[in-house]
Amino acid sequence: MRISKEKSAENRASLVRAASKLIRERGIDGVGVAEISKEAGLTHGALDAHFRSKEELALAALSFGLEEARARLEEHGREGMPGLARFVDHFLSAGCRDDYAGAGPISASASEIGRQDQAISLRFSEGYLEMVRAFERVLETARPGDDAHDRALTLVATLVGAQAVARGAAKGDPALSERVLSAARKVIGETIMAPADGPAR
Amino acid sequence: MRISKEKSAENRASLVRAASKLIRERGIDGVGVAEISKEAGLTHGALDAHFRSKEELALAALSFGLEEARARLEEHGREGMPGLARFVDHFLSAGCRDDYAGAGPISASASEIGRQDQAISLRFSEGYLEMVRAFERVLETARPGDDAHDRALTLVATLVGAQAVARGAAKGDPALSERVLSAARKVIGETIMAPADGPAR
Repeated sequence: MRISKEKSAENRASLVRAASKLIRERGIDGVGVAEISKEAGLTHGALDAHFRSKEELALAALSFGLEEARARLEEHGREGMPGLARFVDHFLSAGCRDDYAGAGPISASASEIGRQDQAISLRFSEGYLEMVRAFERVLETARPGDDAHDRALTLVATLVGAQAVARGAAKGDPALSERVLSAARKVIGETIMAPADGPAR
Repeated sequence: MRISKEKSAENRASLVRAASKLIRERGIDGVGVAEISKEAGLTHGALDAHFRSKEELALAALSFGLEEARARLEEHGREGMPGLARFVDHFLSAGCRDDYAGAGPISASASEIGRQDQAISLRFSEGYLEMVRAFERVLETARPGDDAHDRALTLVATLVGAQAVARGAAKGDPALSERVLSAARKVIGETIMAPADGPAR
């Protein structure tokens, strides 16, 4: 049975959304194409019609998640430093920690990306750099100097690491998990995001 | 065939070492018990005699890797701040980034631990906290105050995030990967590890 162009595009988008959600929840190696088809409400044949391999689908899913994260961050960035401070506070909140499917793919897949192929690594690099640049523009304005790029690179790495560690500790030591998030919020605010004349908040 | 107590302990240690290496290289979900037995040069039966499940073996492997990392860090910590600065520089080097099997399990498994069971999360929390305390003791001496714990929590999270991001970018954008490592070394040295009267280095 042939389907319309519109239906085909809709199916593809459903598959990408489903893959993005399941991969963030369970990891790249933790989910199979059968589960992704099922989550999208489609057959395995529909998946085969759009993606030649699980790697190709994982790449599209990563792009989808990175694009969502970029849009969210740019919206906050338009409000300058207070907007970015709110983004950091939300990213390092218990709610965002527990929302695997809703939070960004960079930390959801942090330690898995390195084991994937070059195409995934390239898309990951672009997505990470887009987040870095959104921070950099605001950091540069708040404290002119030549180190805004380095501070932004480190800031995003710290967000990724703190969220991953907080997730890792959440089941075994919930108090430690909370403390990691609050410590990272505080230290980032007092150092990387601080204006030249003192702590930012 | 019954084997001696010594041989049995030796087999167990081989299995744990093999599991620790393969899990760091390929991720918890990326490796099966058959491959671990083979890497250890033992039969699947030998593995069954020591571990009731892959989870139990993964927990022992995590403990083994965390203990190695703790010993390495404590050795550096005995030399005070210069020792810890060398630890940070090594951790955030291209060599350590590329040495999945040799580097610590916290960043090798950062985004996977949150998906594992409570026992794994508890052991992860203990291992992370041991690293944090080793940094905290030295940070506290270098810059007395009540924020050494928060700075150490953030420092270790930054190490984890920067190594994970650098690994993720390595295949697709090697220059970005190097820049993340050097930026994190620089920003950590100038902020979290800096003495009260200025940058540490």
